[in-house]
Amino acid sequence: MNIAFIGLGNMGAPMARNLIRAGHALQVFDLNKTVLAEFAELGAQIGDSPAQAAQGSELVITMLPAAAHVRSVYLNDDGVLKGISPGVPAVDCSTIDPQTIRDIAALAAQQGVVLGDAPVSGGTGGAQAGTLTFMVGGSAGHFAVLKPVLDQMGRNIVHCGDVGTGQIAKICNNMLLAISMIGVAESMALGNALGIDTQVLAGIINTSTGRCWSSEAYNPWPGIVETAPASRGYSGGFGAELMLKDLGLATEAARSAHQPVILGAVAQQLYQAMSLRGDGGKDFSAIIEGYRPKV
Amino acid sequence: MNIAFIGLGNMGAPMARNLIRAGHALQVFDLNKTVLAEFAELGAQIGDSPAQAAQGSELVITMLPAAAHVRSVYLNDDGVLKGISPGVPAVDCSTIDPQTIRDIAALAAQQGVVLGDAPVSGGTGGAQAGTLTFMVGGSAGHFAVLKPVLDQMGRNIVHCGDVGTGQIAKICNNMLLAISMIGVAESMALGNALGIDTQVLAGIINTSTGRCWSSEAYNPWPGIVETAPASRGYSGGFGAELMLKDLGLATEAARSAHQPVILGAVAQQLYQAMSLRGDGGKDFSAIIEGYRPKV
Amino acid sequence: MNIAFIGLGNMGAPMARNLIRAGHALQVFDLNKTVLAEFAELGAQIGDSPAQAAQGSELVITMLPAAAHVRSVYLNDDGVLKGISPGVPAVDCSTIDPQTIRDIAALAAQQGVVLGDAPVSGGTGGAQAGTLTFMVGGSAGHFAVLKPVLDQMGRNIVHCGDVGTGQIAKICNNMLLAISMIGVAESMALGNALGIDTQVLAGIINTSTGRCWSSEAYNPWPGIVETAPASRGYSGGFGAELMLKDLGLATEAARSAHQPVILGAVAQQLYQAMSLRGDGGKDFSAIIEGYRPKV
Amino acid sequence: MNIAFIGLGNMGAPMARNLIRAGHALQVFDLNKTVLAEFAELGAQIGDSPAQAAQGSELVITMLPAAAHVRSVYLNDDGVLKGISPGVPAVDCSTIDPQTIRDIAALAAQQGVVLGDAPVSGGTGGAQAGTLTFMVGGSAGHFAVLKPVLDQMGRNIVHCGDVGTGQIAKICNNMLLAISMIGVAESMALGNALGIDTQVLAGIINTSTGRCWSSEAYNPWPGIVETAPASRGYSGGFGAELMLKDLGLATEAARSAHQPVILGAVAQQLYQAMSLRGDGGKDFSAIIEGYRPKV
Repeated sequence: MNIAFIGLGNMGAPMARNLIRAGHALQVFDLNKTVLAEFAELGAQIGDSPAQAAQGSELVITMLPAAAHVRSVYLNDDGVLKGISPGVPAVDCSTIDPQTIRDIAALAAQQGVVLGDAPVSGGTGGAQAGTLTFMVGGSAGHFAVLKPVLDQMGRNIVHCGDVGTGQIAKICNNMLLAISMIGVAESMALGNALGIDTQVLAGIINTSTGRCWSSEAYNPWPGIVETAPASRGYSGGFGAELMLKDLGLATEAARSAHQPVILGAVAQQLYQAMSLRGDGGKDFSAIIEGYRPKV
Repeated sequence: MNIAFIGLGNMGAPMARNLIRAGHALQVFDLNKTVLAEFAELGAQIGDSPAQAAQGSELVITMLPAAAHVRSVYLNDDGVLKGISPGVPAVDCSTIDPQTIRDIAALAAQQGVVLGDAPVSGGTGGAQAGTLTFMVGGSAGHFAVLKPVLDQMGRNIVHCGDVGTGQIAKICNNMLLAISMIGVAESMALGNALGIDTQVLAGIINTSTGRCWSSEAYNPWPGIVETAPASRGYSGGFGAELMLKDLGLATEAARSAHQPVILGAVAQQLYQAMSLRGDGGKDFSAIIEGYRPKV
Repeated sequence: MNIAFIGLGNMGAPMARNLIRAGHALQVFDLNKTVLAEFAELGAQIGDSPAQAAQGSELVITMLPAAAHVRSVYLNDDGVLKGISPGVPAVDCSTIDPQTIRDIAALAAQQGVVLGDAPVSGGTGGAQAGTLTFMVGGSAGHFAVLKPVLDQMGRNIVHCGDVGTGQIAKICNNMLLAISMIGVAESMALGNALGIDTQVLAGIINTSTGRCWSSEAYNPWPGIVETAPASRGYSGGFGAELMLKDLGLATEAARSAHQPVILGAVAQQLYQAMSLRGDGGKDFSAIIEGYRPKV
Repeated sequence: MNIAFIGLGNMGAPMARNLIRAGHALQVFDLNKTVLAEFAELGAQIGDSPAQAAQGSELVITMLPAAAHVRSVYLNDDGVLKGISPGVPAVDCSTIDPQTIRDIAALAAQQGVVLGDAPVSGGTGGAQAGTLTFMVGGSAGHFAVLKPVLDQMGRNIVHCGDVGTGQIAKICNNMLLAISMIGVAESMALGNALGIDTQVLAGIINTSTGRCWSSEAYNPWPGIVETAPASRGYSGGFGAELMLKDLGLATEAARSAHQPVILGAVAQQLYQAMSLRGDGGKDFSAIIEGYRPKV
């Protein structure tokens, strides 16, 4: 299949490599000349612009840092919508606000292009291993078209509803994840301060009503889960700055919808404070450091 | 076995009945004459005071509403410590602050009495069915003594560490439960306001990093979990006033320990506001009603 | 003086009328035909577009609902920057985020136009009476040019620093106002619940360290301040939806600056919840209703 | 006048000295032998117990660290109520919860003793200078009896209502103070991060709707108010640990009254976090340090 892939950053590059490995012919675009050179060696065609990369492709995939980039990559004078042929499906894998992708999809529809959203979870590790989760927003028909290709980059491809719902699913899940993680951090730190063994406490929580992914699989207290970032100095994993970005999208979407998210907003501020302390590069479970005396 | 059981309320009465069914001889005390009459018919001996109920018993169990009652039942002039024989084990199943039970246990130890704590979860349903969880604080030896008897009232008997750690485990778990529940409520309400199907959203969360007991087993959005209180008008279940009590214990213990619990404190206030609105009698998952437009 | 005035809404219309009364010749633009007809009768020239209204004017003033409008009024193909002459000063009186006005001012500067910001406080009453406060961002020279004209619409014209600082002053002040108001509401409601006379409590606060504008001049408890909205059913005054808009600007600016504002974010969510309850049209001091039992 | 004064700590000792200077004969009690020796040299009679100190006195004044001390000083077997004569007025100047003083006053009334509460503000400086504020709870008659004596230790003697209302006034005011202070800290730090001069911002706030005692008289940004602790490294002033104590009393009283105090609870947690960081000894305005990058 002839696939246009635009955005070859930390996530996009390994995703695109998996498509090449799966036998697809890629037409790529990025602002980074180094990564373009690397993809040229892998046999990809290099476009001068998103429009040129999209020309003649049978599917367009974009993976970009933020809404402003998605907007310009699709809508600029040399953007995707200037190069793509009517009837060719497109999907944006960036994590952005639901409204932006809906707006762009509406403009795309005017020229016969169906655009969906498919934000991912799984990080750079999942992108390399091809084990990402894709949360897909778009019609059932569009989902059927996208799924076989997404399967080559991920393990879990979920249809969430119409365009935009992929983003909604992601920000709702991640807001809850942030709240749970802080809840686990407060609970573990309180237990420790009051004098219970943290291993015992984690065991009780994990077999009781407090159990959650953050306590079971990713406990922020060092040594509880061997494979968790907490057990290796909070390196690797899901960076606090990325969580902060998702919380910003969640509270901003909540604001537009006139929907209160009280704990979500406090969680955002606590990650903001962590970032201000200079710890934004650590795994998001390091939020617990704000709840423990300095060693 | 000759067991003194003091406190025959909504939880204590069915627990004591299970001990009678298991063949134990009970010596009981309560301020409520009606329930005493009922236990007399079941063959229990009625004490005039906690002290008298404790006399000659081989084990003392107490189940009371709050710390003030536990203090007076053990320490008053006609309290348990005036009647109990040295060497007889005792256990308090009330949910109170960890410090109070530690203080009373220290006084008990002075007269050769070993007192532990074993707060429960599982509600009145679990008390009747004998399926409670007991979180037990006390020495390993004391736990070994208590376990066979607790087994006759519960299904899951967990040793948490020294005296007081049963309480700590319970309040830490329940604080996390409150935070998770509000997190799920905010996440589901936000998703709904933004336009994703709530059933789909719950499915994604439950297979992703946001998953927790509150989303999987007890989802606050009506109709997601058939057996959850949300699907029957928020009746039954774990009342908001009880959650409020546990959150009060958690934040108060945190205050004594100089340990911040930011989301825990906000959760407490949100349940306080729910109580002020007159909804304290509903299941605690009804916290979601504050996040939805009035129907 | 020949003044272009663009945006004749609830605030802009009375401001523009004050300029006509002061003897200026106005060239106006708005999308609302009715208000344009009214200004035609007052002798103003009606422009077909912002560009046309700006042509030949000696000063351009804009007063618009949100950043998107300001952006399009200045930057569109028929926008102010297409009609204004080099060297003509301009000022935007809208309340928007600081970054947007800085961005537009930078573009304006490229064609020799100096644009400042001057958001107001004082509401529609102040706009009519000509007693607004203007918080002005721009160079000292620009401020000197604007001040005589702003004096004809307001009473208190404050120079805050470079372009954008007017917006910063406004959102910082209003975020603090929201926090103070909720603080007064919680304090008064707590005192009342505990049994102190609210008039006595207000008197003590107002002569002590808790005193603030919200307690002294605008107390949310009914009957404490005769002239406050609380004493007339929370009508009139500064609507909760407007406060919500300003809090959104504040937390959004904080997010861009990686600056935590924890109480500010909670305040925003509490006003969001008030809006969800259907009370967004009430004065912002009605936030206290969430802290009192329903009557 | 023959006055019993019990509790000669950092606050009580200078208050008692002011009474000696005013010509009263003092009968004192404290656990600290050193301070007792000092008062013996000043001519005071030393009691062996609160009861003995109270014997033969015409007025009893107590000034103690916390509710537990007040309870034991009045109610123990050698407590004030065992020594005081019927008809002798008493007043407790400690800062404690309103319910405890109401309970003790009810017991005192049974033996014909009228007990009021009169917590102070003004700190050790005010205690030495005799410029304290007393917030007095008790009947009008009791207030009339106390006022002349309190005048010798303070400048501002306010009658708040029945017994307990002195405490209510104090905790409501101080909760609002904490909220305002954090609000000012967030507002100043946000303004600084966004690029407005902090001196200018403070000036605008102080002439606008955000103005409050914390911004005008005690601004937490260094250099804004010359005499404020912020301008001398946050030393002196009102310590964060003391604010934490008052916030604990406020939220605990709110809990008993089923009264939500959302910002109050968050404020408490933020001071808790400050204490955990090891900064509890600094002035409470140092809360702003959590909002600024480490220098």
